[in-house]
Amino acid sequence: MRLSRYFLPVLKEDPKEAQIVSHRLMLRAGMVKQQTAGIYSWLPLGYKVLRRIEQIVHQEMQRAGHIPLLMPTLQPAELWKESGRYDAYGEEMLRVTDRNKRDLLYGPTNEEMITDIFRSGVNSYKDLPLTLYHIQWKFRDERRPRFGVMRGREFLMKDSYNFDLTKEDALHAYNRHLVAYLRTYERMGLQAIPMRADGGPIGGDYTHEFLVLAETGESEVFYDSEITDLSFGDRQIDYDDVGQCQAVLEEFTSRYARTDETHDQDVFDKVPEERRRSARGIEVGQLFYFGTKYSEPMGATVVGPDGAKVPVHMGSHGIGVSRLLGAIIEASHDDKGIVWPEGVTPFHVGIANLKQGDASTDSACEALYTELKARGLDPLYDDRNERAGAKFATMDLIGLPWRITVGPRGLADNKVELTSRRTGESQEMSPKDAVARLVQIYEPILAANAV
Amino acid sequence: MRLSRYFLPVLKEDPKEAQIVSHRLMLRAGMVKQQTAGIYSWLPLGYKVLRRIEQIVHQEMQRAGHIPLLMPTLQPAELWKESGRYDAYGEEMLRVTDRNKRDLLYGPTNEEMITDIFRSGVNSYKDLPLTLYHIQWKFRDERRPRFGVMRGREFLMKDSYNFDLTKEDALHAYNRHLVAYLRTYERMGLQAIPMRADGGPIGGDYTHEFLVLAETGESEVFYDSEITDLSFGDRQIDYDDVGQCQAVLEEFTSRYARTDETHDQDVFDKVPEERRRSARGIEVGQLFYFGTKYSEPMGATVVGPDGAKVPVHMGSHGIGVSRLLGAIIEASHDDKGIVWPEGVTPFHVGIANLKQGDASTDSACEALYTELKARGLDPLYDDRNERAGAKFATMDLIGLPWRITVGPRGLADNKVELTSRRTGESQEMSPKDAVARLVQIYEPILAANAV
Repeated sequence: MRLSRYFLPVLKEDPKEAQIVSHRLMLRAGMVKQQTAGIYSWLPLGYKVLRRIEQIVHQEMQRAGHIPLLMPTLQPAELWKESGRYDAYGEEMLRVTDRNKRDLLYGPTNEEMITDIFRSGVNSYKDLPLTLYHIQWKFRDERRPRFGVMRGREFLMKDSYNFDLTKEDALHAYNRHLVAYLRTYERMGLQAIPMRADGGPIGGDYTHEFLVLAETGESEVFYDSEITDLSFGDRQIDYDDVGQCQAVLEEFTSRYARTDETHDQDVFDKVPEERRRSARGIEVGQLFYFGTKYSEPMGATVVGPDGAKVPVHMGSHGIGVSRLLGAIIEASHDDKGIVWPEGVTPFHVGIANLKQGDASTDSACEALYTELKARGLDPLYDDRNERAGAKFATMDLIGLPWRITVGPRGLADNKVELTSRRTGESQEMSPKDAVARLVQIYEPILAANAV
Repeated sequence: MRLSRYFLPVLKEDPKEAQIVSHRLMLRAGMVKQQTAGIYSWLPLGYKVLRRIEQIVHQEMQRAGHIPLLMPTLQPAELWKESGRYDAYGEEMLRVTDRNKRDLLYGPTNEEMITDIFRSGVNSYKDLPLTLYHIQWKFRDERRPRFGVMRGREFLMKDSYNFDLTKEDALHAYNRHLVAYLRTYERMGLQAIPMRADGGPIGGDYTHEFLVLAETGESEVFYDSEITDLSFGDRQIDYDDVGQCQAVLEEFTSRYARTDETHDQDVFDKVPEERRRSARGIEVGQLFYFGTKYSEPMGATVVGPDGAKVPVHMGSHGIGVSRLLGAIIEASHDDKGIVWPEGVTPFHVGIANLKQGDASTDSACEALYTELKARGLDPLYDDRNERAGAKFATMDLIGLPWRITVGPRGLADNKVELTSRRTGESQEMSPKDAVARLVQIYEPILAANAV
C-alpha cells in the first residue's frame, strides 16, 4: 500500500477520552473511531489487524478439528426463554422489538442458538464429537463502556461450542481448545496464561481464563513465576490424542495461577516465596465446560450406543477477538507508539523515502516495494512529501516491526537502512539484503498463515 | 474435510416454507437454518460459500484501489438526523433504544457514517481520490421477508463510498466500480448485466443495477440480446486510466438494458425486433453517483486547489453478498440440486468411497484426499458408511462441480471415475490423472484467489 493513497487519519494530540494506553494509541494511530459510547468503526489500519487476528483464530480452531459457521447477530427471544436466561440476563442484553412487535435481542453470546442448531441437525451419538464455532459481532450493553475496544459494547468474539456424548469426551474438547488457544496467542506474540476461573452460578472446576499480564489489566492475578517460563512453541500435536491434549492441560495448569475471584491465599502460600507473583492481567479468552445446562432444558439429545436418548455434554469457549487488539498494544508499546508483533502487524514493513521526488530515491523505493510484494510481503510505502522526522514519527506510532529507510546518501553506496521498531537498532545493507532479511524474518509467519 | 466429521444436516424432504428453488435447495443442502423470519444461521456449508464470495468481492475491490474498513452494525440516531433520513426512512429501519435511553439503529446502509468518518479524517483535496468500503451485516425490517437469503432481514452487503473533488472524478470512481463488478460476478460464474436504474428521489442518470437473469427474478427486465454476448474475460485494466474505464462503461451500457422501473417502450422499439428480449432478473448490485447529497448537509468538505472549501462528490456502490448465494443457485441448479460454479464452490471436489471399510478402497481414498490437499485443493471426502446411491445423492444435492468415485472394481485396474456435476459425464482414469485434471481445472481459480 502507498500511504499517499491510504486512509490513515493519525492524530497529533492525545485524545482526551482515552484513559489507557491502548485506547490512546488506537485513536492516535487512526485505527478506530468511536461512533457512540462503546461502538467503534474500524478504520483501515485497525481493520487490517482485526482481520489478521481473526485469521489466526480461524486457522487454529480448524487445525483442532472445529467447524466454522456463522450465526446472526439478532436472535429471537423465544430461544432465551427456553433456557430461562431471557429474564435473568438483565440490562446488559440489548432487547429489540421489530415492526411486527416480535421480541428480538442482539446476541451477547450463543449457547441457546447453537443448541437449537444442534438439536435440529443431530440425532445420533455417531455424529459426535462435534465442535462448532463462529466469529461474530456481539453486543453487551455495558453500563460504563470504556477503555476503547477493550470494553466496547459491540465487540467481535470467537465462541465455540462442543457437543459430546460423555463428560470425558467433553473434557477432551476442553483440552483441544486449551491447546489451540496456547498456539493462537503465541502466534500473536502474546503470553496468555490459563488461570483457574470462577464457574459462576454453575460452579465446577472446569473453567479457565486466559490472561495477558499488563499493568493496566482489570483483574488482579496471582501466580507461580514458573508458569511464565512455559511456552507451547512449535511442537506438533495430534488433536485426536486424548493423552497428548491432557498432558498439555496438566503442564500449563498445574502451577498456581488464579485471578482475584478464585485466589486462595492458603494455597498460594505453599508456592515457594521467591516464585510468588502478583500482577495485573487482561482476560483474552475463557474455557468452560458446563455439562447439560442447556442441552437438558432445550432437549438437545442424541441416541446413545444403548438406544437411549441422552442430553449431550457441552462447553463454550471464547476468545475476545476485538479486545485482543487492545491487549496486544497494552503488552507491546513504548512512548513513541505501538510495537506490533510480526504475527499480527498490519503491514510487514514500512518504506520511508527520505527524498520524495528525487528520481533515484523514488525508483529505489518503487523497486523495493515491488520486490517485497513479489515475495509475499505486505509493505507500506510512505511516499508522501513529508520530512523524514514526520515519516519516522508516523511509522513509530503505527508500530510496524521493521522500517527500511531510503535516502540519496546511502543509495550512492547501494545502501538502505533496516530498523527494528522493537530495539531501535539500524543496520545498513543493500536493498537486496534488506529484502532477503525480511523474507527470512517473516518466513515462519507466512508459512503459518498459508496453512 | 471428512464428511463423517462435518456438520451437514441435509434434509430428505422439501421444506414447506420454501417458495423458490434457491431457498429450497439451501435448506435441503444444510446451508442455512432460519432462526426467525428473515434471520438465518449460516451452517458450515453455507458459511463456506459465503466466505468464498466475500473473498472475491474483497479482492476485486482492492484490485480497483479501494480501501477496506469496517463500520459497526449499530449506529447512533444523531447521524441520521443530520442527513434528514432518520424520520424519512420508515418502518424498514430497525430502531433500538439502549439502557441509557439513547436512540440507536441497526444500519440498513452507511452513507451517514462513512461521511462522518470522512469529514473527521480528510481536509484537503490532496487526499483524494478516496474510496472506502466494508462488508458488514445490515438489517432491513422487511414487511414480508421471503425467498430465503434473497430477501432476508439481516443480510451481508458490500457497500463502497467514493469521495472525489469533482463530478468527473466521481464518475471515474463509478466506472472503476463497474469494471470491478464485472470481474467480481464473472469470477462467481455469473453473468450480471448492468441496467439503467431508477435514481429514486435524487434522480439522475448515474445509477445502474446489475441483474442476473433467472426465471424467479423479482424484476422484469428488457434488453438487447447483444448484451449477453459481452464478457469482461481476463483482460488487463489500469484502474487509474480514466479512458480505459470509461470505455468499459460504454461497451457494457450502450445497448438497451433496463428494468421495468426505467423501461421505455419507445426506445426499446428501436432495437431490432429479433434482438429484443424480456425476462426476469435478480438484482445483485448497484452503482450510484449522488453528488453532494450527504456531503453538503453533513459538512464533508475539502479545501480545493484554490483554497476554498467545497463539499465532496460522492457515490455509493453495493453488492448483495448474502443474496448472491441465492442468485447463483437460481442461475445454476438442476432437478438433483445445486451446481456450483468452480469459483465459489464450497469444496472443489467430492470423493465418494463406494466401499467404506475395504482396506484398499479406503487407502486409495485417503491417498487421493491427502494428495488433493497437498496440491492446494479443498476436497470433501464422503467416508460415511452409506450406500453409493445415498453418497451420490448428497454430492448432487450440495452441488460440488466434480466428484471422484472410488470403488474396488475400478481400483483393480488402477481406475477411478471423475464426474462433472454440470454435464453428468464420467471418465475413467488413474487416481494420478484425476488429481492432475482437477489441478488443471482449478489452476486459474486458485491463482485468482492467491492475489
